[in-house]
Amino acid sequence: MSSAYERAGVDYATLDAAKRVALASALSTTAFAARRGAHLDDASRGEPAVVVEVAGVTIGFVLECLGTKSTIARDYETLTGADRFDAIGYDTVAAVVNDCCCVGALPFVVNAYFATGSASWYSGTRHASLVAGFRRACEDAGAAWGGGESPTLAGLVADEAIDLAGSAVGLVPATARPLLGAALEPGDEIVLVASSGLHANGASLARAVADRLSEGLLAPLASGRSLGDALLDESVVYVSLVERALERGIGLHYASHVTGHGLRKLMRADRELTYRVERLPAVPEVLAFLAEAAELSARDAYGTLNMGAGFACFVAPGDGATLVEVARDLGYRAEVSGTVESGPRRVVLEPLDVTYDADELELR
Amino acid sequence: MSSAYERAGVDYATLDAAKRVALASALSTTAFAARRGAHLDDASRGEPAVVVEVAGVTIGFVLECLGTKSTIARDYETLTGADRFDAIGYDTVAAVVNDCCCVGALPFVVNAYFATGSASWYSGTRHASLVAGFRRACEDAGAAWGGGESPTLAGLVADEAIDLAGSAVGLVPATARPLLGAALEPGDEIVLVASSGLHANGASLARAVADRLSEGLLAPLASGRSLGDALLDESVVYVSLVERALERGIGLHYASHVTGHGLRKLMRADRELTYRVERLPAVPEVLAFLAEAAELSARDAYGTLNMGAGFACFVAPGDGATLVEVARDLGYRAEVSGTVESGPRRVVLEPLDVTYDADELELR
Repeated sequence: MSSAYERAGVDYATLDAAKRVALASALSTTAFAARRGAHLDDASRGEPAVVVEVAGVTIGFVLECLGTKSTIARDYETLTGADRFDAIGYDTVAAVVNDCCCVGALPFVVNAYFATGSASWYSGTRHASLVAGFRRACEDAGAAWGGGESPTLAGLVADEAIDLAGSAVGLVPATARPLLGAALEPGDEIVLVASSGLHANGASLARAVADRLSEGLLAPLASGRSLGDALLDESVVYVSLVERALERGIGLHYASHVTGHGLRKLMRADRELTYRVERLPAVPEVLAFLAEAAELSARDAYGTLNMGAGFACFVAPGDGATLVEVARDLGYRAEVSGTVESGPRRVVLEPLDVTYDADELELR
Repeated sequence: MSSAYERAGVDYATLDAAKRVALASALSTTAFAARRGAHLDDASRGEPAVVVEVAGVTIGFVLECLGTKSTIARDYETLTGADRFDAIGYDTVAAVVNDCCCVGALPFVVNAYFATGSASWYSGTRHASLVAGFRRACEDAGAAWGGGESPTLAGLVADEAIDLAGSAVGLVPATARPLLGAALEPGDEIVLVASSGLHANGASLARAVADRLSEGLLAPLASGRSLGDALLDESVVYVSLVERALERGIGLHYASHVTGHGLRKLMRADRELTYRVERLPAVPEVLAFLAEAAELSARDAYGTLNMGAGFACFVAPGDGATLVEVARDLGYRAEVSGTVESGPRRVVLEPLDVTYDADELELR
């Protein structure tokens, strides 16, 4: 799986193994918080956000990073003069808050991590743009921007680069339960919600592809847009959809933010269930281009990139159509795309005749 | 101020200015959280952690990074074969939780950010050591380790490097008020609590010093220890001190984690008050060595490094001695070191005849 991706410098096998070592250690720390009367829900281990109950309140807590997408914005700026750091700021928050709302925690505060290699990064307009995009995404997520940290790490972060991450705390509404997979049932409907393009995952692959093209990031897509321009389309923030679904009392049983590992993320829950996708969303032009240029099989493309499905909601039988309507009212594109079935933990993409087995997504 | 430090690649003037731009933007987002019924206390803007009230609970929330200290551990490992990443993991958590407890929020969950330049970083024992140190500091802080993110960022983070940061959420006990400076009064006593050495701040300066020494990190200190060995002494976690002070009902009016900007941080609170220090703690050998080798004046040394004072507590008149006793019971070295006075916002280090004026610490 994803050998093309690994050639781009991302060794998910090693990283996933290291992640499991860290998770195992973290798992042994649950009792440490007893000193504070706080209870960390171990069922949230390996979920996109950790869930903690403290003083009668249930919160979700996440720290997430943007990956290497900022280097595309920097290269694009060098080539064209266009400052696209507004989108990068938006992307950073989206990566964080979309993970937070997956567990049913609606983010209320976000902190920023902007680590540069040299203070010269702050010249020009890019910092103001980054800040503006970060702020705008916080607004779309319903979260205050608390603060954060913006160190210069000479010799550690590359001179022209910025390492972007963020952290968020969200509130699980008192009327709801955290979404940790326990509520998933055979018969649940899978609603796939459209992405806008690359989002935060696949940037290393995209850079590797651009490096091999004679026109690089200026390579034209079929629409006439350049590759770089399209790669920098800002992410979608899905918080409002989860918020509205909870408000409307839709039977939302689980949610998955489709990021690294692509649609393998549909089997993120620690459950022995099969996820059968019968309809796939339209593929954004830029992702189709990437998949083709990187010579990814359908199996590798959908197991690596979001391929048009940025978020998945798993809802009670019959609630899919209502959620789709709610989504469309909010401006999202969404479709009832499949069904949860009893069976081994796996994802079946019927239109492509592709199946991902449980051992292809080991996050615990 | 700190020109020696700036030669080491840290341009605090530019960074502080950028930080203020981001803070101003963040400040305009407070109302965004109203959608969640959450209220961010604007008095916490510019404080080490942001304070938010949500569903009747008051939390502190912080994201903080280790800076470049991990590169010293890596260089030391290359030179000696000794793996000191346990201390680095401990340092990372200390940087985060010490900031959190400053506002009176006792951390209950910590998330990790481990960003490497290449998956090869994970070879050998260093990841296991890092994880062990991270876990141990969480235990000392009374916080569960929730999870986090460990990306590989090829081309963004240097190949042999790791960018370390973390985030924490803390609970302000129901019986206490957040420590945001409002309670500070003339007559309050200043208790300085000892550091163990470099802690998380000054690593870039230390690297620059080592680069200029013929023996580099192996340069011997007077005690016979090497510079590198001493630089890698792990930080002190001060959470238990704040916890116990709150439990004991000591009149803790404010707390300051002495990090970048050294003892200038004593005037962190947004108050027009003078902080007069009459006694300074013993200077750790490694910091005395650094200050001398970098040819820092006393003014620059104490305005840049912690010089033996890792944490400051500001307590009601007469409560200093009790806090010192509490501190010693917990194994900290602490002393009543000075007094808060009415007067312009400034720090006076009497033994050195050094004064830092308000415009030498602009974090808002």
